[in-house]
Amino acid sequence: MSERPLMVIPQPTLKRLVVYHQWLKQLQERGRDVVSCTVLARDFKLDATQIRKDLEIAGIAGTPRVGYRIDAVIASIESLLGWTNVNDAFLAGVGNLGAALLGYERFTRQGVNIIAAFDLDPAKIGTKIHGKPVFSLTKMAPLAQRMKIKIGILTVPAPAAQTVADLMIAGGIEAIWNFAPTALQVPEPIVVESVSLASSFAVLLNQLQHQRHKTT
Amino acid sequence: MSERPLMVIPQPTLKRLVVYHQWLKQLQERGRDVVSCTVLARDFKLDATQIRKDLEIAGIAGTPRVGYRIDAVIASIESLLGWTNVNDAFLAGVGNLGAALLGYERFTRQGVNIIAAFDLDPAKIGTKIHGKPVFSLTKMAPLAQRMKIKIGILTVPAPAAQTVADLMIAGGIEAIWNFAPTALQVPEPIVVESVSLASSFAVLLNQLQHQRHKTT
Repeated sequence: MSERPLMVIPQPTLKRLVVYHQWLKQLQERGRDVVSCTVLARDFKLDATQIRKDLEIAGIAGTPRVGYRIDAVIASIESLLGWTNVNDAFLAGVGNLGAALLGYERFTRQGVNIIAAFDLDPAKIGTKIHGKPVFSLTKMAPLAQRMKIKIGILTVPAPAAQTVADLMIAGGIEAIWNFAPTALQVPEPIVVESVSLASSFAVLLNQLQHQRHKTT
Repeated sequence: MSERPLMVIPQPTLKRLVVYHQWLKQLQERGRDVVSCTVLARDFKLDATQIRKDLEIAGIAGTPRVGYRIDAVIASIESLLGWTNVNDAFLAGVGNLGAALLGYERFTRQGVNIIAAFDLDPAKIGTKIHGKPVFSLTKMAPLAQRMKIKIGILTVPAPAAQTVADLMIAGGIEAIWNFAPTALQVPEPIVVESVSLASSFAVLLNQLQHQRHKTT
């Protein structure tokens, strides 16, 4: 794991860096080598100062009158985000979403390597899904401990989420990526980052309703 | 669709309201009727004033010395988020993630009703996945227009995302829920909300690295 970031990078900055990365990749595929802050600002409808500041946090400086070398910016962002190292992870809960994440090939390019999955369903235990072995949930904590796994991906139904999170923590897991639609209670220094589809859809719906009131 | 929110509710507030909702549902299942702001603040490690302010935005007031009636708060949040109405949506891209979303039963309780899916793969066209019919992508725009669908869920691979988003907009879709790992360019007044797994994992990894530096 990269040792670079000594400080917590603000979440909005991290999220913008990922978006810049996606866009720069597209520009690169179209054969572009350099890009100016002004062009980026226009594409993202953001302030050029904002972008310059975000890239500064990532340790990236542009050249006056030239702009940013796209390959250098991409490499710096990937290093900052920890994508240049691969972090082994366990996944608990092989339902529809869990299985889909096991098959998400892009993860390995973004620093995540799911090495095993865990479930309670006897029909799933012992099988492989998208090439990843599925073990009994009862084996998760001892295996995590033995293999020194620090990242757990939680894709179990909401009522089971707290129990399974506790199992992860018992196995020495320090960071939980939570897809279960529920609030987890974890002790310090365990970190939790939740992907809330409900929140995201609520944001979309609220913006849509706002647009309609503006235009009608 | 609910006509209540005339203004854009700040995204952090919306996201917290969804978390409060999840937590209050859990308290309710344990037989609780009322909850005080102080208890909520303790459970969420948030400031009580913050919670009171969020609930005020949702039009919810507590009773001094009693607190909030849990059922009333849940109902108000659901109404504000638009969950009491169901919004028909089309989904484009029936890969692993798209198929998982088609099977996500919780969506109907959160205001989303996916009524059809679209793909280019002849092996998928004409089938049903989790009970939802899959049609050819070429039929998406005319069908959206005829059925007055306003919400599109984009789960195609990144290189196809812009083209498929353009098709959605051509069909009269006004809000795109984007799961493709790419930045979309859309005209006003189209709204886009992206679920970026890469950003979310970057946040988790950054917090984990920060915790390690603190404790070592």
